[in-house]
Amino acid sequence: MKKSEDKLKEVISHAKEYGYVFPSSEIYDGLSATYDYGQLGVELKNNIKKYWWAAMVQMNEEIVGLDAAIFMHPKTWKASGHTEAFNDPMIDNKDSKKRYRADVLVEEHIEKYREKIAKDVAKGKKRFGDDFDEVQFLATNPNVKRNQAKIDELETKLEEIFKNDDLPALKTMIDELGIACPVSGSKNWTEVRQFNLMFSTELGSVADDSSTIYLRPETAQGIFVNFLNVQKTGRMKIPFGIAQIGKAFRNEIVARQFIFRMREFEQMEMQYFVRPGEEIKWYEHWKEKRNKWHKALGIGEEFYRDHDHIQLAHYANAASDIEFDFPMGFKELEGIHSRTDFDLKKHEEHSGKKLQFFDPEMNKNYTPYVVETSVGLDRMFLAVFSASLKNETLEDGSERVVLSIPPALAPYKVAVMPLTKKDGLPDKAREIINELKFDFNCQYDEKDSIGKRYRRQDAIGTPFHVTVDHQTLEDNTVTIRDRDTMKQERVAIQDLYSIIDEKVSLKKLLKKG
Amino acid sequence: MKKSEDKLKEVISHAKEYGYVFPSSEIYDGLSATYDYGQLGVELKNNIKKYWWAAMVQMNEEIVGLDAAIFMHPKTWKASGHTEAFNDPMIDNKDSKKRYRADVLVEEHIEKYREKIAKDVAKGKKRFGDDFDEVQFLATNPNVKRNQAKIDELETKLEEIFKNDDLPALKTMIDELGIACPVSGSKNWTEVRQFNLMFSTELGSVADDSSTIYLRPETAQGIFVNFLNVQKTGRMKIPFGIAQIGKAFRNEIVARQFIFRMREFEQMEMQYFVRPGEEIKWYEHWKEKRNKWHKALGIGEEFYRDHDHIQLAHYANAASDIEFDFPMGFKELEGIHSRTDFDLKKHEEHSGKKLQFFDPEMNKNYTPYVVETSVGLDRMFLAVFSASLKNETLEDGSERVVLSIPPALAPYKVAVMPLTKKDGLPDKAREIINELKFDFNCQYDEKDSIGKRYRRQDAIGTPFHVTVDHQTLEDNTVTIRDRDTMKQERVAIQDLYSIIDEKVSLKKLLKKG
Repeated sequence: MKKSEDKLKEVISHAKEYGYVFPSSEIYDGLSATYDYGQLGVELKNNIKKYWWAAMVQMNEEIVGLDAAIFMHPKTWKASGHTEAFNDPMIDNKDSKKRYRADVLVEEHIEKYREKIAKDVAKGKKRFGDDFDEVQFLATNPNVKRNQAKIDELETKLEEIFKNDDLPALKTMIDELGIACPVSGSKNWTEVRQFNLMFSTELGSVADDSSTIYLRPETAQGIFVNFLNVQKTGRMKIPFGIAQIGKAFRNEIVARQFIFRMREFEQMEMQYFVRPGEEIKWYEHWKEKRNKWHKALGIGEEFYRDHDHIQLAHYANAASDIEFDFPMGFKELEGIHSRTDFDLKKHEEHSGKKLQFFDPEMNKNYTPYVVETSVGLDRMFLAVFSASLKNETLEDGSERVVLSIPPALAPYKVAVMPLTKKDGLPDKAREIINELKFDFNCQYDEKDSIGKRYRRQDAIGTPFHVTVDHQTLEDNTVTIRDRDTMKQERVAIQDLYSIIDEKVSLKKLLKKG
Repeated sequence: MKKSEDKLKEVISHAKEYGYVFPSSEIYDGLSATYDYGQLGVELKNNIKKYWWAAMVQMNEEIVGLDAAIFMHPKTWKASGHTEAFNDPMIDNKDSKKRYRADVLVEEHIEKYREKIAKDVAKGKKRFGDDFDEVQFLATNPNVKRNQAKIDELETKLEEIFKNDDLPALKTMIDELGIACPVSGSKNWTEVRQFNLMFSTELGSVADDSSTIYLRPETAQGIFVNFLNVQKTGRMKIPFGIAQIGKAFRNEIVARQFIFRMREFEQMEMQYFVRPGEEIKWYEHWKEKRNKWHKALGIGEEFYRDHDHIQLAHYANAASDIEFDFPMGFKELEGIHSRTDFDLKKHEEHSGKKLQFFDPEMNKNYTPYVVETSVGLDRMFLAVFSASLKNETLEDGSERVVLSIPPALAPYKVAVMPLTKKDGLPDKAREIINELKFDFNCQYDEKDSIGKRYRRQDAIGTPFHVTVDHQTLEDNTVTIRDRDTMKQERVAIQDLYSIIDEKVSLKKLLKKG
């Protein structure tokens, strides 16, 4: 736990120091759980989008894109169930005026028992050293057993409460456990109420109150309401997919873990419309394909695992997450869900319009089934960034920080540096950039010693470092340094394009997927 | 007037029919003034973004990107003046409950006098034919003179009201002119009130009411609050620029003209930070450079004109619009504004933080001046789309609709079509796509006669149409048809890449700008 917190802190601090992610509105002391992508962050984010879009839309004849507005007709959210059921149980402390998720307060209380157990284990280890048998200890130590029993009891209770949507029981639990507000220290709580997670705002076109709209809490519905428009105007035949990248908003009370859970976030979603009865085949197909897409980046297979859902959402008949080993441990990166015809049917019901496909091969109309793949773009960013951030000890004992971002996603592909600021070396460096910049995002870097500049380019993740020296002026060769191997080679300027392209090209990734 | 309305209708209908732009949430009868970009629209939009981003960030060593959140600290909008002064004068009709912009009601009333004059002119023309002297008529006809005097009187009054922010006088004017609600026909009006154009919503982290935030009404402030973060972590030296593409939101009461004025829209903005005193030089520089960028698309110089502002906003010391000849006539497409140090100074004042740059050459600190270039992405889309939509009469007397989108921006670069659906031609066509698709967005098209398919590709703007026929199977040649000239050539499959790339490459555009 401690170690992973340290790692997350390191990630946050590196992201800020090198212009990847800034706290939003920082001069006004920030806006909670909101972040801005800096000059390098926006490039990494855009490159992730490009990779996803190319793999989805450009590579697949039967998948097309969409860019629906954030504002949608309010009936959309009645149909999808978000108006009624997209709630968190909230409680306010009357003294601090702070609002909390009631279930999270209880979970944090339960966490304390876990910490007690961990402490007892640590003590045992210290006392018995190599002779300590942790499994044996957990099974027999009376303190541990008492604490574990308490954890089990409270978790069972909490599960029961959720099953029955029993808000008063949740309040009673908070009272009985004597949970105090972390800010005021008081136990003076309001009742527990349902709090809708959608952000609402007012459209100004009419004066009465019928104009409340919501910031979309998910991008998927923009695809569903446009299903027929796209199918008809694009003359799509089942199976086909609609892909979309866009912002969504959830008024999370407990937003945390850096950019992992934000109130404003971005999704990359593809909804694949299939024949009823064929959805499980396609679900398996996309599960495999999405795994390949992630792993093609070369971050390491050990960072990924599938988590098949046992308990399914009401609209799904199969669901799996691709989990990633974040600094906080394995968490959801992407979801692949077989959503049945739930959404289209709901929209048919609420709009009174048929959302069906006439299948010429089957010679009949039906409401298609849907298989969804949904990646959190900010999570993908965090995954790539955190797994790439490494502290390395070199052969000579010195240390370096390197951000080994997959080259196709790196913000700058190459840094071009004059060895010194004089003798025409800067001009020569810029001449090289002026050739390369149409194909690659380049950085010119002339400040500090060449060693420092290499370290800085390592730290921001630039895969290639080209140095222009006096020999360059004589024979048009430069040295090129590889970020990962730190090896330098002397090459002809005219070969730079193909050397760089070979490593940073998106094509190679796309061919793997 | 009539003609331009027809043209706009044609644009809207073509955009919908071919999957460029759909009314948002159409199955729920749409959400007013909100649109979704369809499968082709999203590609055109993305290509415009790519062109802008490459020209700004990739081509310029001293310009970097940013992607700030839509949610910002509320103090941002106090500092920028939006909380106080970003208002429209509104009036509600008590019977219809409809809300109107009070000044627009008066302007529409004034418009009626203009229509009367136009009618008189039309009558005169009809009566006198070629002998009709319009200038003479306008100067002497008593009806015209009376109506023109009325227009002048009302416009002067309205100007006066705006100068003094005199809302009661605006109400009196509406009453005196006897303006009725177009919906209810009643003259039963509320008072005129200021209505802030920012959308507000509530952040859920605290229970008290200090958590009202706004959807940003412009993207520029995200750049200003991050000025120091970017400058320091990116080690930028004045002059330098920060570029950003993102959504902004304005609760316009009168949102109209298709995607020209929407409540949710997207901006492409670059703020260029310069030495005080050098801002006019840079303003001229960017004015020229932005004009070049637009005109490099080859849409035609006659579609653009500069409109230098005489009356300047309070924060500007020079301002000009690049106007485009939209279906509704010449309107603002991009603004180039010399914003002085107004914004940074305001943020210094409200945040208590210094937002200065230490200039090593001048050996002193100063608050930089800012030159802004700001394009409406949706407007740019409308500009490209509407100017490209043409009804052509061909030599043989037949007609075709062609969307001559600049090839670098076209959604699909090439359509590959088997002449018939059998004899292995579809497989051969897909084989060609599988080679080309890594470099170009390709469409496979096998339905309907080849002539119909050419017409459809003309209508969606695909620059190249490749046909696979029986000869292809023998000698690996295909025909390639050019959308604009409609000329067909027989070429080797292996030459397709370079033929297409030569015309659709973004590089060529970038080299022109």
